[in-house]
Amino acid sequence: MTTKYGFYYKEGYDDPLCIDQTSVKQFIERLSSPPTPFLLYSFEQFRHNIDTYQQELKNLAPIRSRLSYSMKANYNPHLLSILKSAKVMLTTVSGGEMQLALSNGFEPSSIIYNGNGKTDESIEMAIDAGVLLNVDSLFDLEIILEYARQLNKIANVLIRVNPNLSDTNVHAYNTTASKTSKFGTNIDELEPIYNLIEENHDKWIRLYGFHCHLGSTISNTQIITECVQKLIPLFDIKRFPHLRLLNIGGGLNIDYKRYAQRTKNDNNDDIKIPTIEDYIQSIKEPLQLLPNTIELIVEPGRSLIANSCILITRVLGQKSTGSIQQLVVDASMTECIRPALYQAYHHIDTINSLSTDERIPFDVVGPVCESGDFLGKQRCLPNTLKRGDFLAIFDVGAYCSSMSSNYNMRPRPAEYTLDEHEHIKVLKKRETNEDLLRSFYVE
Amino acid sequence: MTTKYGFYYKEGYDDPLCIDQTSVKQFIERLSSPPTPFLLYSFEQFRHNIDTYQQELKNLAPIRSRLSYSMKANYNPHLLSILKSAKVMLTTVSGGEMQLALSNGFEPSSIIYNGNGKTDESIEMAIDAGVLLNVDSLFDLEIILEYARQLNKIANVLIRVNPNLSDTNVHAYNTTASKTSKFGTNIDELEPIYNLIEENHDKWIRLYGFHCHLGSTISNTQIITECVQKLIPLFDIKRFPHLRLLNIGGGLNIDYKRYAQRTKNDNNDDIKIPTIEDYIQSIKEPLQLLPNTIELIVEPGRSLIANSCILITRVLGQKSTGSIQQLVVDASMTECIRPALYQAYHHIDTINSLSTDERIPFDVVGPVCESGDFLGKQRCLPNTLKRGDFLAIFDVGAYCSSMSSNYNMRPRPAEYTLDEHEHIKVLKKRETNEDLLRSFYVE
Ligand SMILES: Cc1ncc(COP(=O)(O)O)c(C=O)c1O
Ligand SMILES: Cc1ncc(COP(=O)(O)O)c(C=O)c1O
Repeated sequence: MTTKYGFYYKEGYDDPLCIDQTSVKQFIERLSSPPTPFLLYSFEQFRHNIDTYQQELKNLAPIRSRLSYSMKANYNPHLLSILKSAKVMLTTVSGGEMQLALSNGFEPSSIIYNGNGKTDESIEMAIDAGVLLNVDSLFDLEIILEYARQLNKIANVLIRVNPNLSDTNVHAYNTTASKTSKFGTNIDELEPIYNLIEENHDKWIRLYGFHCHLGSTISNTQIITECVQKLIPLFDIKRFPHLRLLNIGGGLNIDYKRYAQRTKNDNNDDIKIPTIEDYIQSIKEPLQLLPNTIELIVEPGRSLIANSCILITRVLGQKSTGSIQQLVVDASMTECIRPALYQAYHHIDTINSLSTDERIPFDVVGPVCESGDFLGKQRCLPNTLKRGDFLAIFDVGAYCSSMSSNYNMRPRPAEYTLDEHEHIKVLKKRETNEDLLRSFYVE
Repeated sequence: MTTKYGFYYKEGYDDPLCIDQTSVKQFIERLSSPPTPFLLYSFEQFRHNIDTYQQELKNLAPIRSRLSYSMKANYNPHLLSILKSAKVMLTTVSGGEMQLALSNGFEPSSIIYNGNGKTDESIEMAIDAGVLLNVDSLFDLEIILEYARQLNKIANVLIRVNPNLSDTNVHAYNTTASKTSKFGTNIDELEPIYNLIEENHDKWIRLYGFHCHLGSTISNTQIITECVQKLIPLFDIKRFPHLRLLNIGGGLNIDYKRYAQRTKNDNNDDIKIPTIEDYIQSIKEPLQLLPNTIELIVEPGRSLIANSCILITRVLGQKSTGSIQQLVVDASMTECIRPALYQAYHHIDTINSLSTDERIPFDVVGPVCESGDFLGKQRCLPNTLKRGDFLAIFDVGAYCSSMSSNYNMRPRPAEYTLDEHEHIKVLKKRETNEDLLRSFYVE
């Protein structure tokens, strides 16, 4: 029997929810007065995701490749030591993220700094440290060159290319390579950037590669295939002899509805979600044309961390409003804004064995005073749920904690995991009222 | 000549932007290396808004009335002393907000605690302190009674009623009294709540009044009029002799597009926005039926604070993508999520005199790596804008700072005002990287 890891219902969907080898109920009982809502991570799942990517990338041999983690998905610093020992690179999108990567001992050559609007300070930091910079646009390049000159250093860059490809099923906010997207430079309009790089080549700048990122929650791997096909011809090694990196970004979706068979609802309209294996396989063929001096980088966020974390919340009560049965819980849009912002689905279920209680459709809503504060609509849950009962909101590892707010003066939640010895490890303290007010009081 | 206050273009739209009696440019020059983006408040405007509400409410005499500020719009504690000296009540929506109100010396009887999902601790705090509680639902009432008994105290309550009225122009997330809204109890289904209150009346609970709130960004005062008409018949003083408060909530919109005439764009599709005077006048007539023992409460958030604050940002650069000209600025959805979340309009303009430079339509976008990160679409701004130029994003006093996040590890911005002596007063320090990481490191 293989040992299970991550979050799963023990033997099957009838059983209690487990994290790795422990039941979530037991975990909760070990916390003294569990401060709901809180986040619970399975580092085993996270390690497994990293491992899966790295194994699949190995299968691309002889093509060399590296995995990079997109920190914006979740910048909890406790994730970084796991990533570092697995030799994963980091993709950062701000001075703060870059600094966190550097201070955690990542090699500058293992850090990519990407952004359509970089500040002077962060450009300076990147060049000074030797971090790889994505050139987003002509104005971005001009400032990079200015700081390289000022620092008397060489900027190591990739060009962020917009290949004009998008998955029509992806929310507009998660589409980053449509024709009018704010990111990168159109693949047909690179000449002014090439020229400026050429003028300063080996003096202030070196072009190491190309980068693109088509968006997030991508389920159509076809566009990734096309993207690789479009980018390979850019590698003109005669013109730019340092070229050696092809970064195809992240963006793979995860199957947010995979638990839905337990409650047998919400599982109809679904698009098939490719696995990490499917995803990597989809680029195998076009990569055959890649010069063997070029290394591939993939930089997922969501598909590395999303399924490694759940949000535990307590039921506050039930009420009916018109035709709708509301299940009020103590988690909200402040911990998980994805349903409100992207109409995203996060599965919600009990942590217990499946009871014989009838399940009825609920709107699962939080206590925040705003109608956008819902976690799920029309979710089939036991009609017996009452104040104090625990629920799990699944797959909150990506774009939840990193996007969280203090709206309604809500403290941001604690984050926990279980270490190798099954001891509770605090990954983030719950904020206090004092934390929320600290910045307002000035001596 | 009357002295001007708030944010305005000096003599007219041709002139530089002023805050009260100072030009914004001068203000910025007085900051050493202005840490953009930052928020700038006009307390004169805020005081004026409070004053306008209070004057208009006085015009309702002999009907007695009070103003309450909805703290969720903006909980900067520096606003509270102004509110306190103006004898404004506070409407709070969480334990944190209630505690902040109490610790700033507001009388418990001047604090309302509202919420569809109250935690045990906050209910206990409210009853113990003597704060007015909104009973949202039957389950909410049951817990309130439980704690009243435990504390051996009387809970002072209003009932949050859903009168089933909504402004069809309001975004779904800001509509709070449609038939299936999660807030309050349907006006036709109050009997179980009445009965439970009656059973415990004067022993554990006293019913002081009714509360409703139809939503936010309301421009159709007709629904407020109807709301008052629907609520007055609830005042059955024979049955509940303590009844003395009618709280009709907040929700009045502001004219977010009033500056648009400067740039002569985006000003077409507009609905007429009622003034505070229009709003109060709209309830004058139905209020004639209010028993004279009953006091009216209005509890706006947005229309008190939104126009008292601007966000100053710096241009990072221009780039064109396909047919779109992008203006990249250093503010983002982390400071102002309303465009992404509600497709809301915030006016954006230069702080300078109107130049003769041609204006062209720009998408004004931030540096956050996500396509939802825009501040305005197709805004007419000078085609000469370049890195370092300052822009103002208007009307960010409500639901911006209070909803802000650290996505992309962005520190939340500093907040400033000018005091009576035109000295710069820091209302909030800009967060540091250390602030962002504090909660993650646990001894
Ligand atoms: C440049 C870049 N790379 C990678 C990612 C990661 O995307 P995902 O989390 O969908 O894998 C993002 C996020 O949008 C990004 O902006
Ligand atoms: C109960 C209650 N009262 C008042 C308000 C204030 O609304 P506004 O800021 O639109 O005036 C809100 C906000 O939605 C609210 O929930």
